[in-house]
Amino acid sequence: MHDLTQLETPALVLERGKLERNIARMRDHLAKLKVGLRPHVKTAKSFDVARLALAGQPGGITVSTMKEAEQFFARGITNLLYAVGITPNKLDHVAALQKKGADITVILDNVESARMVAARGVALGTRFPALIEIDSDGHRSGVKPGDAVLVDIGRILESDGAQLRGILTHAGDSYNCDTVEKIRAMAAREREAVVQCAAQLRAAGLPCPIVSVGSTPTATYSEDLTGVTEVRAGVYMFFDLVMAGLNVCAIDDVAVSVLATVIGHQPDKNWIITDAGWMAMSRDRGTSSQRVDQGYGVVCDVAGRPLDDLIVASTNQEHGIIGRRGGGSIDVTQYPVGTLLRVLPNHACATAAQHDRYYVVDGGTAITAVWPRFSGW
Amino acid sequence: MHDLTQLETPALVLERGKLERNIARMRDHLAKLKVGLRPHVKTAKSFDVARLALAGQPGGITVSTMKEAEQFFARGITNLLYAVGITPNKLDHVAALQKKGADITVILDNVESARMVAARGVALGTRFPALIEIDSDGHRSGVKPGDAVLVDIGRILESDGAQLRGILTHAGDSYNCDTVEKIRAMAAREREAVVQCAAQLRAAGLPCPIVSVGSTPTATYSEDLTGVTEVRAGVYMFFDLVMAGLNVCAIDDVAVSVLATVIGHQPDKNWIITDAGWMAMSRDRGTSSQRVDQGYGVVCDVAGRPLDDLIVASTNQEHGIIGRRGGGSIDVTQYPVGTLLRVLPNHACATAAQHDRYYVVDGGTAITAVWPRFSGW
Repeated sequence: MHDLTQLETPALVLERGKLERNIARMRDHLAKLKVGLRPHVKTAKSFDVARLALAGQPGGITVSTMKEAEQFFARGITNLLYAVGITPNKLDHVAALQKKGADITVILDNVESARMVAARGVALGTRFPALIEIDSDGHRSGVKPGDAVLVDIGRILESDGAQLRGILTHAGDSYNCDTVEKIRAMAAREREAVVQCAAQLRAAGLPCPIVSVGSTPTATYSEDLTGVTEVRAGVYMFFDLVMAGLNVCAIDDVAVSVLATVIGHQPDKNWIITDAGWMAMSRDRGTSSQRVDQGYGVVCDVAGRPLDDLIVASTNQEHGIIGRRGGGSIDVTQYPVGTLLRVLPNHACATAAQHDRYYVVDGGTAITAVWPRFSGW
Repeated sequence: MHDLTQLETPALVLERGKLERNIARMRDHLAKLKVGLRPHVKTAKSFDVARLALAGQPGGITVSTMKEAEQFFARGITNLLYAVGITPNKLDHVAALQKKGADITVILDNVESARMVAARGVALGTRFPALIEIDSDGHRSGVKPGDAVLVDIGRILESDGAQLRGILTHAGDSYNCDTVEKIRAMAAREREAVVQCAAQLRAAGLPCPIVSVGSTPTATYSEDLTGVTEVRAGVYMFFDLVMAGLNVCAIDDVAVSVLATVIGHQPDKNWIITDAGWMAMSRDRGTSSQRVDQGYGVVCDVAGRPLDDLIVASTNQEHGIIGRRGGGSIDVTQYPVGTLLRVLPNHACATAAQHDRYYVVDGGTAITAVWPRFSGW
């Protein structure tokens, strides 16, 4: 298959030029702030993408599943941070990767987990390096800055079976900031939270070599990362409509899209119907709470140019229903059966996860590469 | 792995007893109405599940992707209905399956598509059997009952390169019916639409051997299927919270769930945090428009018994946040780190699609089988 026009649809398309531009922008921004990037591979789940993101970086990655750890380690990436609170049922897998040579760090945010990790490390004759998760924004997990339990957890991790490596936070609430000023403030708050917690651990005589922050919005708008040793981000590689709605990128920066084919119309309803439904786009409706609701995605022509106000207004499993944003008439004769369209997604992580490969293009419809990706756990 | 307690989480669990009960109920209901079932494999995407659903049925299946057609044909199922409007880029694939011995039928709802299918059939030296899609409920694709274009499409399909096999409709709007009475009325409307259209084709001297209807709600509550030759349904095998909200099943009938592990808590917020986020549950929020909003799913213990009013209130990619339905306090000490839970999904099709296998249990936590499933196109 040499061209998008030869593919069976739906299919996932990746614009290499936009990908490289997005990666370069984040790299240059963080270089100015003198902090390295530990790319989060949960969005791309592709070695070919990770390789580009790792250029000029310290070399470690962030993963969201043990399958990512397994797959990327198999491709030679040995420094891994599994950034979801560790469960007892994954520790044998972590230890197995360690035995093969992986330097893998786990995270946790409570005394129970720290005891469990240390005990399992002793039982398996290893030490599990761990970061303590800090809650910088109230959106999910983590120890609140100022809570004395931080030192209790740190002490448990400094016993046999574990190793305290430092702290980590993720200001996920930045996805709900509706102005750039609020994202900047969130980035400052994210940094302050970890700097305070690192000081608390060090004051108690505990080590804190790693101070890790990250979310694509806060990484993009951070102005000072003093005291931070690494930034984690993933969606910046592809970007998506949610990020565009937050002014973290422009719509023209979105590097992934879903190729779809027109299968019919309901002219009286101003509907164009395609073969890319929620299975191809994901059920993510992240823009529904933003200023501009993009439905299930912004519709472009086959070359990736947005078509005037057309969005995927609704979906079934394998059907997309295209309408005009906010309603209005469409001359459906402009989009006959067989027309190829591309749809920019709300959320790159969710949409990419529905596909097993990227058809790579660079500004046209010629396919320059096919990059495999994986899903699951 | 012999028991759910030995798995890495998240993982997809299937209750065999419930699956068999659900299949038997639909089989017995349609047998009374003297109509065969063409199971829709888009929900399960598993040969092991389809095999159970096909027992006592004519033997054909419905598919939503050409990958399903390919995979099930490879397992010996030769009678295939690809029930999404056909695109030009899939016809070579359809013809290749025909050459290998598949009896595969496509669908379409317009003159352009009929001409395209017939022309491609001529070019490839084959005939593509086709059903004309009827719009019985206004929710998506199809020719409206009474529209004269039906006969125009039929005549094109009766020329070289194609073959008119009949008509098909899907009353997908039954998912929006909020009473059983409305579902019964929708089932009657679905039948009347196709019976009228079949008469219209036959009056024009065209054949209409297949008259196909189907959606799990209308199939469940249909009272008369005179004039219908086959019913298509898929989600009835597993059921889900959306179907329970429609009174199409009980919550106790839901056969699939996602196994999750507690990774921590935010006691001041009455949150239990697990490792099953929207990647494991899907982003489907189908119950959000129903009387009872079940969040991202109903939380059960590891044996599958619902826990008092606990739902997955929100999710991140690999995190589930459990709260009490409608708010309220939780004694989080009852759910320590490492506790295994099972979450019933809003939408079985969407949740199952995120996983590559079913861990089959039967009323307990012992794993009696592992059934592979596939995703993608």
